[in-house]
Amino acid sequence: MKEISLGLIGFGTIGTGVVKVLQENATLIQQRLGAKLVLKRIADLDLTTPRNVTLEKGVLTNDARSILKDDQIDIVIELMGGYEPARTFLLEAMANKKHVVTANKALLATHGDELFAVAKKENVNIGFEASVGGTIPIIKTLKESLAANRIRSLLGIVNGTANFILTKMTDEGKSFAAVLKEAQSLGFAEADPTYDVEGIDTAHKLAIVLALAYGKKVHLEDIYREGIGQISQQDIDHARELGYRIKLLAIARETAGIVEARIHPTMIPCDHLLANVNANFNAFHILGDASGPIFLYGQGAGMLPTASAVVGDLVDISREILKGVSGLKPARAYHTETGERINLLPMDEVRTNYYFCFSAVDRPGVLSKISGILGGRNISIAAVLQKGRKETGAVPVVITTYKARERDVQDALFEIDKLDIVLGKTVVIRVEDDKL
Amino acid sequence: MKEISLGLIGFGTIGTGVVKVLQENATLIQQRLGAKLVLKRIADLDLTTPRNVTLEKGVLTNDARSILKDDQIDIVIELMGGYEPARTFLLEAMANKKHVVTANKALLATHGDELFAVAKKENVNIGFEASVGGTIPIIKTLKESLAANRIRSLLGIVNGTANFILTKMTDEGKSFAAVLKEAQSLGFAEADPTYDVEGIDTAHKLAIVLALAYGKKVHLEDIYREGIGQISQQDIDHARELGYRIKLLAIARETAGIVEARIHPTMIPCDHLLANVNANFNAFHILGDASGPIFLYGQGAGMLPTASAVVGDLVDISREILKGVSGLKPARAYHTETGERINLLPMDEVRTNYYFCFSAVDRPGVLSKISGILGGRNISIAAVLQKGRKETGAVPVVITTYKARERDVQDALFEIDKLDIVLGKTVVIRVEDDKL
Repeated sequence: MKEISLGLIGFGTIGTGVVKVLQENATLIQQRLGAKLVLKRIADLDLTTPRNVTLEKGVLTNDARSILKDDQIDIVIELMGGYEPARTFLLEAMANKKHVVTANKALLATHGDELFAVAKKENVNIGFEASVGGTIPIIKTLKESLAANRIRSLLGIVNGTANFILTKMTDEGKSFAAVLKEAQSLGFAEADPTYDVEGIDTAHKLAIVLALAYGKKVHLEDIYREGIGQISQQDIDHARELGYRIKLLAIARETAGIVEARIHPTMIPCDHLLANVNANFNAFHILGDASGPIFLYGQGAGMLPTASAVVGDLVDISREILKGVSGLKPARAYHTETGERINLLPMDEVRTNYYFCFSAVDRPGVLSKISGILGGRNISIAAVLQKGRKETGAVPVVITTYKARERDVQDALFEIDKLDIVLGKTVVIRVEDDKL
Repeated sequence: MKEISLGLIGFGTIGTGVVKVLQENATLIQQRLGAKLVLKRIADLDLTTPRNVTLEKGVLTNDARSILKDDQIDIVIELMGGYEPARTFLLEAMANKKHVVTANKALLATHGDELFAVAKKENVNIGFEASVGGTIPIIKTLKESLAANRIRSLLGIVNGTANFILTKMTDEGKSFAAVLKEAQSLGFAEADPTYDVEGIDTAHKLAIVLALAYGKKVHLEDIYREGIGQISQQDIDHARELGYRIKLLAIARETAGIVEARIHPTMIPCDHLLANVNANFNAFHILGDASGPIFLYGQGAGMLPTASAVVGDLVDISREILKGVSGLKPARAYHTETGERINLLPMDEVRTNYYFCFSAVDRPGVLSKISGILGGRNISIAAVLQKGRKETGAVPVVITTYKARERDVQDALFEIDKLDIVLGKTVVIRVEDDKL
C-alpha cells in the first residue's frame, strides 16, 4: 500500500481533530484513497497539554522546521492560525515542494496573493476548504461543481459567534450585551469579540469566496462592513412582526460584471432557508445562472467538522500525488487570474430594501413629513408600523422600503434626523426580500 | 488554447440545456478550465424539433455511432435516458477510450456494476453528478468532501414530482388525486406517474448514493419502498397538529456496519431543514461522524440546473485529460469495491418512530384496548390525539410512538385491526424525530 506522508504544524483543537479523524477512520480513508495517510510529525510549542490522542514516540516536536525540511513529507498542514510564523512556514513548505493545507482564513484573505503565487510557481497545491464555512464544501462547490455558472449572488452566514448571539437574542429576548457575556463564559466568544461581532472574520471569508466566484481579488478594506453590536431587542421584535429574522450576512451580487460586496445585519424573510440557520451553524445561499439556487449548510467551526474539511483536502491532494500530477484545479478557480481587482459597486450605489426605525414624537403629520422626505429621494415605502402612543418622548415609527439607492437613503436620513419631530438617530437595517 | 472535444447523444431538454450553458458561458468556462470545451457533434433521432439554439452546420446528426467512433472526441455525454440503446452506447464509448458523462439514474442503478467495471478496465471516467439531485453536488460531496467520514445517515428528498404533490396537498388542502391531475396537466408528472409517486425513481437514486457512501452495492429490490398514493388530507392535517410535515424520504442509516435503506412517506418536524424543502426542490441531510450534519439543497431537475451538473462533470474530467491522467477518484468513491453487497438490515428489524391513525368506534375503553396491545409489543406511546365524537361510525384515534421495531408494529397492527372496535385498516406513517 502506497503511503502519503503528512506533517502537522499546530496541535490545538483543530490539529487534534485531524489526528483523531486520521486515526479513527484510517481504514475507511485508505479504502477511499487507495493509499495510507501517515502523519509523520506534529509540531507545536506546547508539548505537554494532554490532547487525548495516542501518538507514536518521536512524532511530536517543538521544531516546525524539522517538518518543513523533511524530504519525505508530502503535505504540510498548517493549523496554528495567525499571520506569522504561519505565513513563513507555508512559504517555506511550498519552496520545498510540499503541498499545503490550511484553515487560516485571516492569512489567506490578507496574504493570499503571495501564497497562491508561490504555489503556482512551485507547482504545489494549497487546500483551504476548512478556511470558510468549516465542514461545508463551499470552496469545492465554487471551484468545481459550479464551474459552468456565472455566480449571480452569494449570501452567507459564516461567523458562528455572531450567529449564536443573534439567535439567542431572537429566541430568548436578551440584549446583545447579555448574550455576548453568556457566549464568552461558554467559550463561544473571545474576550475581545471585535473580530467576530464587527464582521471582520466574515469579511475575511467573503474575500476568499469572492476570488473564487469572480476570478479577481478584492481588498478587505473595500468590503462594506457593519457589525451586530447596534442590534436592539426592539429591532428583533419589529423584524418578527414584519415576518423577518435578523442575520449577519456576507453578501456578494454580480450585475453586468460589477460586484456588490457587503457585510451587515440583514433582515430576511422567516421562510428563507438562511433565516433558519441558527446557533453556531453556517450556511451559503448561492444563485448560479444555470444551477439556480443552491443552499449549503453545516458546522462552521469545531474540532471534528473542521478536521473533516482538512482531511477532505488531504485526500484530494493525495489523489493527485498518487497520479503524479499537481495543480489539477486552479488554486482560486480561474486560470486567468491576474491580480486584477474585482470591479466593486461603491456602497453608495447599492440598491436594496431597507428597514428604518425612527424615534419620532407622537404628533399628527409626523409620518407625512418623514414619508415626504423619503419620497423626494425616490424611496418608496413598502410597509409602516406605528407603535404605541405617548404624550411625551419618542415612539418608534417603523418603515420598510422597496429597492432604494444607499446614497439616497443616507441623504434622506440625514435630513430626517435633523427634524425636530425626530428625537434620536434612526436605526437602519438592510433587508433581503425578493418579494419587495 | 487547448481544446477538449465533446459528443452529445440525446438532444432533448437536458441536452439542449447543456448546449445553452456551453454556448452562453463559454468564456467563463474557458477561464476556469484553461481550455476550450468544443461540442463537436450531437446525435438525436429527431433532427427537426426547434431547440432554440444555434448550431454550426454538420453538428447535428441522427447517427450516434458517428460520435462513438470519432477518434477526436474525448468525452461522450449520454442524455437520451432509458436502458437501451443508452447502455450499449456508453459501453461502446468507453471501449473506444472515451470518458462518459450521464444523467441516467435508472441505467446506473440497474447496470452500474457493468458500466463501472468497463470504465475501470478502459481507464476512463464516468461522470454522473446529474443523475442524483440535479444541480446539488451530492456525488462530489460523498466522493470527495466527506472522504474522511463514516456516513451515519443520509436522508434525501430526491423526487421533485412526489415532493411537488405533497407540497400542494399540504399547502392547498387538496387530495392526492386532484393534485396529481394538476401536476400532470402542468407537465410536472407523467401520464403514468408510477415511477415517481411509488418511489421507484427515489430507489434508483438511493441505490446510487448508497454505493458511494458504503463502498458496496445494493440490489434495488432489497430497498424497502412505499409510495405516497395512500397519503390522505387527514394524515396531513394530523401531521400539522403534531408539528410535522409529510415528505417522501430516501433514508440510509448505518449502525455497526449494518445499513437501513428505505423509502416511504415520513413525518418530520416542521423545523427540520428537510420539512421546508418544497415544490420540486431536492435536498439531502447527511450526518458524517466527523462533519456532523450537512444539508444540501437545490433544483433536482430541469434544463439548466441539470446541465450545470453535467458541465461540472465535463470540467472535472477535462482537468484530468489536460494533465494526462484518468481515474483520479474511484468512480464509486472506494478503491476496495468488490461487488459485495451492503449488509442491509431487514425492514422487520428497523427501529423508528411511528404515527398510527386508527378508525375506531367512539366507545369508552377503546384507547385502553389499543394501547394495551401496543404495550404488549414493546411499543411506547409518545402522544395521543382523539378527534371528534360520533355516536355511530368511526372516529380517528391518532397515536405516535417512541422508537419501536417494525415487526412488532406490524404484529400489533394485525392484532388491532382484527378488533371489532376498529372499523378500517390502520394508517401507518413512519416518523423521523430526534426528540422521540
